[in-house]
Amino acid sequence: MSKRIITINRMFGSGGRMIGKTLAEELDIHFYDKELIELASKEKKIPFDELAKVDEKKANQWLFPVDYEVQMNPEYHFIPMNDVLYELQRDIIINLADKEDCVIVGRCANHILKDKTLSIFIYAPFEDRVKNVMERTGREEKSVRKLVRRMDKERKAYYEYFTDSKWTDMSEYDLCIDSSRFTQEQILNILKGSL
Amino acid sequence: MSKRIITINRMFGSGGRMIGKTLAEELDIHFYDKELIELASKEKKIPFDELAKVDEKKANQWLFPVDYEVQMNPEYHFIPMNDVLYELQRDIIINLADKEDCVIVGRCANHILKDKTLSIFIYAPFEDRVKNVMERTGREEKSVRKLVRRMDKERKAYYEYFTDSKWTDMSEYDLCIDSSRFTQEQILNILKGSL
Repeated sequence: MSKRIITINRMFGSGGRMIGKTLAEELDIHFYDKELIELASKEKKIPFDELAKVDEKKANQWLFPVDYEVQMNPEYHFIPMNDVLYELQRDIIINLADKEDCVIVGRCANHILKDKTLSIFIYAPFEDRVKNVMERTGREEKSVRKLVRRMDKERKAYYEYFTDSKWTDMSEYDLCIDSSRFTQEQILNILKGSL
Repeated sequence: MSKRIITINRMFGSGGRMIGKTLAEELDIHFYDKELIELASKEKKIPFDELAKVDEKKANQWLFPVDYEVQMNPEYHFIPMNDVLYELQRDIIINLADKEDCVIVGRCANHILKDKTLSIFIYAPFEDRVKNVMERTGREEKSVRKLVRRMDKERKAYYEYFTDSKWTDMSEYDLCIDSSRFTQEQILNILKGSL
């Protein structure tokens, strides 16, 4: 196992993204989060915003005809944009892991790469995450509570739809860390200790 | 939170006990596993073997009259030895955590001490644990498979009976580590990084 391909799944507001970004900087390797949407957007010439709308969400009612060939095939007449993006990101993730060390956030990358990655899950109690998001965004409590709850539901549904596995099942990951119980420095020490 | 009270829950065959023992040695603090039975045995003058039989098991049919006073109280006529041991160990754990840094294995210590402890869960896939136990004991595969399955069930039932929480729920712990994915040295680095 190359331990330098690190995948990070995270509860919304747990600070997982920032931990991944800082780790990538300290290890001097690439960091992929929204960057995966950009790569997918360039590859298929689909506008970034169209993809961003469905990023890490399982399919909704909004369908997207992928290209002329697909459109003409009755079996695949319409494919939801979510599935288009998932498959594009999956191929991008497999290619990235093949050619470089990196940190990848979300997008079921742990499941796609399996044993080839060090897979991390960052969680924290709901109340701590609400507090974090309020501090980060300056939004008022009621709307933040709603947002955190919705984001959790979306990420869970997305992960479970595409992997057929449970998002918060520790056996999906190599290392699970409650970020509310440690300083960022401690978390980085934990992660570097695992490499 | 004093980070020097470290509780370790572990799946059978994951090597969690040995990790805890080595960590305690490296930190030069006390290690409590079966030692908790000894302390309980001395305190209540109940033979060690009687207690060891029910250690980390939820109550079965075998009942134990605690002492004369309890026996005379119709409400508590008989209390299962399991519950007697749980309560004795709970008080011992609270006292230990009050007066010294230590590593405590199992016995719901994470749940009893809550935020006062750094709580760790050590897990590993079933097949890896079967292999570990075969190597450690020299027993043949079929009986080891049975043993690992039974021990998992017992520890789960024990934890869930006394805590009303799920044994493998990551939110019960600060840090969960799949021991099959790291060397012992890496695991010790992870744990020391968290302190």
